[in-house]
Amino acid sequence: MKAIGADRVFTLDEGNLFYEYEREIPEPQEHELLVQVKAISVNPLDTKLRQTTPSETPRVLGFDAVGVVQSVGDEVTLFNEGDKIYYSGSPIYQGSNQTYQLVDERLVGRKPKNLSYNEAASLPLTGLTASETLFDVFQISSNPEENQGKTLLIINGAGGVGSIATQIAKAYGLRVITTASREETKRWSTDMGADIVLNHRNHLVDELKQHDIDEVDYVFCTFNTDMYYETMIDLVKARGTIATIVAFQEKQDLNLLKSKSVTFTHEYMYARVVHQAEDMIKHHEYLTDITEKIEQGIYQPTVTQVMQGLTSDNIYRAHQILEDQRMIGKLVINLEDEHANE
Amino acid sequence: MKAIGADRVFTLDEGNLFYEYEREIPEPQEHELLVQVKAISVNPLDTKLRQTTPSETPRVLGFDAVGVVQSVGDEVTLFNEGDKIYYSGSPIYQGSNQTYQLVDERLVGRKPKNLSYNEAASLPLTGLTASETLFDVFQISSNPEENQGKTLLIINGAGGVGSIATQIAKAYGLRVITTASREETKRWSTDMGADIVLNHRNHLVDELKQHDIDEVDYVFCTFNTDMYYETMIDLVKARGTIATIVAFQEKQDLNLLKSKSVTFTHEYMYARVVHQAEDMIKHHEYLTDITEKIEQGIYQPTVTQVMQGLTSDNIYRAHQILEDQRMIGKLVINLEDEHANE
Repeated sequence: MKAIGADRVFTLDEGNLFYEYEREIPEPQEHELLVQVKAISVNPLDTKLRQTTPSETPRVLGFDAVGVVQSVGDEVTLFNEGDKIYYSGSPIYQGSNQTYQLVDERLVGRKPKNLSYNEAASLPLTGLTASETLFDVFQISSNPEENQGKTLLIINGAGGVGSIATQIAKAYGLRVITTASREETKRWSTDMGADIVLNHRNHLVDELKQHDIDEVDYVFCTFNTDMYYETMIDLVKARGTIATIVAFQEKQDLNLLKSKSVTFTHEYMYARVVHQAEDMIKHHEYLTDITEKIEQGIYQPTVTQVMQGLTSDNIYRAHQILEDQRMIGKLVINLEDEHANE
Repeated sequence: MKAIGADRVFTLDEGNLFYEYEREIPEPQEHELLVQVKAISVNPLDTKLRQTTPSETPRVLGFDAVGVVQSVGDEVTLFNEGDKIYYSGSPIYQGSNQTYQLVDERLVGRKPKNLSYNEAASLPLTGLTASETLFDVFQISSNPEENQGKTLLIINGAGGVGSIATQIAKAYGLRVITTASREETKRWSTDMGADIVLNHRNHLVDELKQHDIDEVDYVFCTFNTDMYYETMIDLVKARGTIATIVAFQEKQDLNLLKSKSVTFTHEYMYARVVHQAEDMIKHHEYLTDITEKIEQGIYQPTVTQVMQGLTSDNIYRAHQILEDQRMIGKLVINLEDEHANE
C-alpha cells in the first residue's frame, strides 16, 4: 500500500518534503476498522500539524477520509466488511493520506448514499467541529422549535467549517449571520443558508447595527481569534457564548468576559479522542445525523475543488492552497481510480 | 431615613470614610418595591465596589438585604405590602446600607418562613451566584438523578459562595469536593455537605490523586483565579467547564483551553441586571427555589457573625473583616431593633 509521509517539520517555502513510500497493510484490533481509502479532504488542521514535531517518522498527515471497510477488529459492532463509511479519525493514528488506514469505529459514520466519495470526503472534520460547537458548546436544543429566536454569528462563513456550521444551525432553527468580503464568498455563504452576510472589512458592530441587531446569542470564530476577541465580546448578549477554533497568538484579558458573564470555549474536535473521553461515540452519532440530513436533501456537501490521485505533489499543492486562507468550501483528493484494486 | 454613604474611593488604611446621613424615603415606580430593610449582609463585592469611582455621591454600598415591603410600583405583580422578602438587588440602584431601599420585584424572593432576618440575609447574593454558576454555566440538570456521577470541585469551600454552592450542588445530586486548609474551615465545609475536602496548601492535582480521582466535570474558583488557572485546566475533564468569580490580575493564555476543549466562564451575578437581560426574572426563580429548600430543611443559612446596628463603624469593620480573606460563611448586620418604627 502507498502512503504520503514526511520526516520533519517544514514550511512550504522549503520545498516539497512530502514523499511517497510503501508500507504494510495493518491489521485491525478491538474496535478498529481497516479501511480502503477512496477520497480524502485536506483541512487547515493538516497544515498546522505539519508544523509540529512528529512523534514517529515518517508521519502520515490527513484526517478526513471516505472508504470501504476491508476487515474489522474483534470488538467491532457498528460496521461490517464492505460498508462504505466516512470519518475524520484521530491524531493518535497515522492519517488518511494513504491507501489503507485504521480507524476506531466509534468515530465513523455510514457514507450518505446519495453522495459521491468526493462529496462525502468534504464533510466529517468540518461537520464534527460544527456539531460539537453547536450542541456541546452552545448547547442548542436538538428540537429546532426550542432554538427559534436565537441568533448565531459565524466569523468567516465561507470556509470549510463555516459552510457546514451554517447549514446545521439553520436546520436546527437558529438565525445565522456570517461574515465574508468578496462577492464569491458572500454568494457561497448565502447559498449555504446564511440569513445575513456581514462585510468583515468593516467593523462588525456597525455592520450588525445596519440590520437593527445589537447583540447575538452565540459567536463562532473560524478566523483570527486575537483580532476578533474584543469585538466578539461586544457583539454577544449577556450570558452568551463564544467559541473559537483558531489558536491565539497572544495572551488575552479574561476579565473582559466578566461584565456580561460571557462563556468562552476553545473548540477542539479531537479533545474527546486525545483524552479518550467516555462519550467518544458522539462522533459516530453526529456523523449519523449528518448522513440522515444529507440523504433527506437538507444539507449539501461543501466540496469546491477536486484533485486526482494520492501524490506528494497533490498534498503539497493542497497545503499551499489551504495556507493561502482564501479557500471557499472544501478541497478533496480522489484516490479511487488509481487504487481501486490495490 | 438613614443611609451609610461615601463620597470617593478609599482604602481601609486611610481610615473610615463612610458616614451616616439622612435622605428622603423614595417612591417605588413600575416594577419597584419600597422595602424597610431589617438585616443586610456584607460581601467581598462590596469591598471591590468601594474601590471603584462612584457615579453619584454619596454612594450607598450593599447588596444583600432582608426586609418588609412598604409600598409597590404600579406594575408590580409578584409581591404585596407587608410581604417579608430577601434579595441582593442591583448595582444600578443605591445599595442596601440604608433603612429603606428600592428594588426591582424580578430580583426578589419571599423570605424563608423558618429563618430569622439575620439568617435570611446571608443567602441572596451567594445563593444567586451559586445558582447561576451551577444552572447557567455548568448547565447541570434540575433533575438530581441526571447529575449522578458528576463531580464539582469548589476552590475555597468555606467562603460565603462556596458554603451555599456546596449545599445546592449536593441537593442536585453532584459529588462535591472543596478546598480548605485550617481545621475550622475544613470542618465547616464538611458541615455544608462536602464529600471530600482537599488541603489547598498542597498541590491540588496530588491531593485529588490521593482520593483516586484524576479529573472532575466542573471547577468553580472562588479564590485567586490567576494562581489556579493552569491547575484548574489540569484538573477538569475533556469538554469540562471552569467558572470563576474572582477577577484576574494578569492576562492568560487561552490556548491552554484547547487540548481538552475546556469551557471557561467569568461568572458575574449582575450581568443580567446590568445588561437588562430579558430573563432577569431568573433571580426571582432561583431565590424561590432556595426558599423552598430552606423551608424543607435541605439548605441551612451560612451566617457566622452578626453585628448590631447600621452604623458607619460597623460597615467599616465589616469591610476590614472581608478584606482579610479569612471569613468563614457570612457576616450579617442587623438593623431591626433600632429602626423598626422609623
